[in-house]
Amino acid sequence: MPQPRFLILADGDFRPMTSKTANSVIRYCGDRVVGVVDSACAGKTAQDILGFGGTIPVVGSMAEGLALGPDAVLIGIAPIGGRLPEQWRAWLLEALAAGCDLWSGLHSFLGDDPALREAARVACRTIHDVRRPPPDLSVASGLARSVAPFVIQTVGTDCNVGKMTAQLQLTRGLNGRGARTRFVPTGQTGIFIEGWGIAVDAVVADFIAGAAERITLEGAKDADVVMVEGQGSINHPGYSGVTLGLLHGSCPDALILCHQASRKHLGDYRADAWMEIPPLADYIRWYETAAALVTPARVIGICLNTYDLSEDRALEACRRARLETGIPATDPVRFDDPALLDAIVTARDAYLVGRRGAGRGPGTTTAP
Amino acid sequence: MPQPRFLILADGDFRPMTSKTANSVIRYCGDRVVGVVDSACAGKTAQDILGFGGTIPVVGSMAEGLALGPDAVLIGIAPIGGRLPEQWRAWLLEALAAGCDLWSGLHSFLGDDPALREAARVACRTIHDVRRPPPDLSVASGLARSVAPFVIQTVGTDCNVGKMTAQLQLTRGLNGRGARTRFVPTGQTGIFIEGWGIAVDAVVADFIAGAAERITLEGAKDADVVMVEGQGSINHPGYSGVTLGLLHGSCPDALILCHQASRKHLGDYRADAWMEIPPLADYIRWYETAAALVTPARVIGICLNTYDLSEDRALEACRRARLETGIPATDPVRFDDPALLDAIVTARDAYLVGRRGAGRGPGTTTAP
Repeated sequence: MPQPRFLILADGDFRPMTSKTANSVIRYCGDRVVGVVDSACAGKTAQDILGFGGTIPVVGSMAEGLALGPDAVLIGIAPIGGRLPEQWRAWLLEALAAGCDLWSGLHSFLGDDPALREAARVACRTIHDVRRPPPDLSVASGLARSVAPFVIQTVGTDCNVGKMTAQLQLTRGLNGRGARTRFVPTGQTGIFIEGWGIAVDAVVADFIAGAAERITLEGAKDADVVMVEGQGSINHPGYSGVTLGLLHGSCPDALILCHQASRKHLGDYRADAWMEIPPLADYIRWYETAAALVTPARVIGICLNTYDLSEDRALEACRRARLETGIPATDPVRFDDPALLDAIVTARDAYLVGRRGAGRGPGTTTAP
Repeated sequence: MPQPRFLILADGDFRPMTSKTANSVIRYCGDRVVGVVDSACAGKTAQDILGFGGTIPVVGSMAEGLALGPDAVLIGIAPIGGRLPEQWRAWLLEALAAGCDLWSGLHSFLGDDPALREAARVACRTIHDVRRPPPDLSVASGLARSVAPFVIQTVGTDCNVGKMTAQLQLTRGLNGRGARTRFVPTGQTGIFIEGWGIAVDAVVADFIAGAAERITLEGAKDADVVMVEGQGSINHPGYSGVTLGLLHGSCPDALILCHQASRKHLGDYRADAWMEIPPLADYIRWYETAAALVTPARVIGICLNTYDLSEDRALEACRRARLETGIPATDPVRFDDPALLDAIVTARDAYLVGRRGAGRGPGTTTAP
């Protein structure tokens, strides 16, 4: 897996809430970020803008950024209107000429731009369009049920509630406890951080589960615990198909339910807030029912995203979630509560015992 | 909507079970089929081969087929290995030169073949690659909940159980009773028959529900009852994402559960039969639960596909399904049982009364 040193292009929009990709890359692999290009806040640091990221400098031009010695330029925000601005194209050509690869999660592929493609060819550089699906995907057939590791997947009450962030944090925590844990990215930001994965919402619909199956098998090769990044929500009117296909393709043994504690309506992350978010206990029942259609899995923990709450209110939200559901709940980014990691380790141990006793294969129940 | 007269290309594989697309087109718009090209059974009729289709002739070459005066050549089978055989390409060029359009549901698009594209341009003919998604799809947002007609969707116990066939039959029956009923195709065969629709399993995963929403809105424009073609099955390890996205995008008011009575295992239509098909009552609970995540819908009828059973066993299967579920069940292709159509009309009337009473919009319950 490539571990390039990134220069992040986030021109005009490097901010706490809007540059989600840039911010997550800085949070989770900040040691591989040499700088951020944003002419609107040149001269500051990531810490100044985001409250984390330390001394990573923000510079005003590609030339200044390239002087910091990156291996690759990563597009960290979506351009307004979705089209590549002319200034960006010029900058990306400059980066290729300087010997950098390009990493992009845009819907329109950089590699389809004739000028960029030709420049990459001439410079012998690679354009990584991480939303471009592999050409040889196939339909899933439940193979992920028979992998050896304990497979965990996050599921959410909505899109954009912090599933990936929670899971990266839990992955760190489990690795800290000696459980060889591998994060399996299913979205662009995770792919940037880990250097591999498939953006499952970008594949042809027939192959959602097939894509999930493939990366789960891949993640299982070298791990005791596999953490498959969840997407969307089972009651989201636009994305539920991706959520269910991902669940049935990766065949997790256990689920972690993620929720943004302050969010009251589905779709609140967009302009068209939709319907009230039902109680967490409803989601637990739905996800467990949905998982069991292919392979059973229990919700063993709850991750709350409390970034916009005071510490008192955040702790209260965690306490309430625990009371409502009887399941360990915390904000793993904010609090150092061992109960959730304990629950995961316990479930993993129970899974290993069951597996040793009964073998594991299609048709057998392997949930903790 | 175009209503071309088709010449069907099914060379080497025009048979009762394998040429599914050809067969359905012959069954449901046989009056628009001028002939079938299959050198392996030239000289016979569709009736000889399929047991239906009357005097539609099978011919041994494209030249003979074109002499029958088609407006379009329709590819009625998938070529082995998925690639267009050289013989077919030559035949399709011959058809374009003779003034025919091309209709194809193949995964690889005819319009991407440079020779065919150029020949179509020169001849001013259109290549309809019905699996090519529209370029401007968007994410669904539940809009289909607010259409005026009564929306019915088929759901299945597996892929390939006869959802489309059942629904076309019910559409005929309802139109026969004076309920203006419109079939909304979501797969290639339905699109061939109706001349419009979107193959929802071929769109990018993010847009499954958006595609379903768009065609449901389109179908609702000129109908009292909308019949949205279902796809896959909610417990199919490969296709469940398509099934759920379609359900949440089209927001049906009622569901018809389809099942092939003799099928015991999920995936039995492929080489890798998978797990036992659970009881129909389980499916009813799952589909009603899944629908209610976005908008409530009840299963109001069961369609059994009994093509491979004796009449006695078929009637027994229908009786058993009714007993098990308490819901009208029949094979609408085989039997002329009015109970299912009665149930649909009753549910539609109840829906109209409810709608008149309460208005209809996001958040209101509109299921019968």
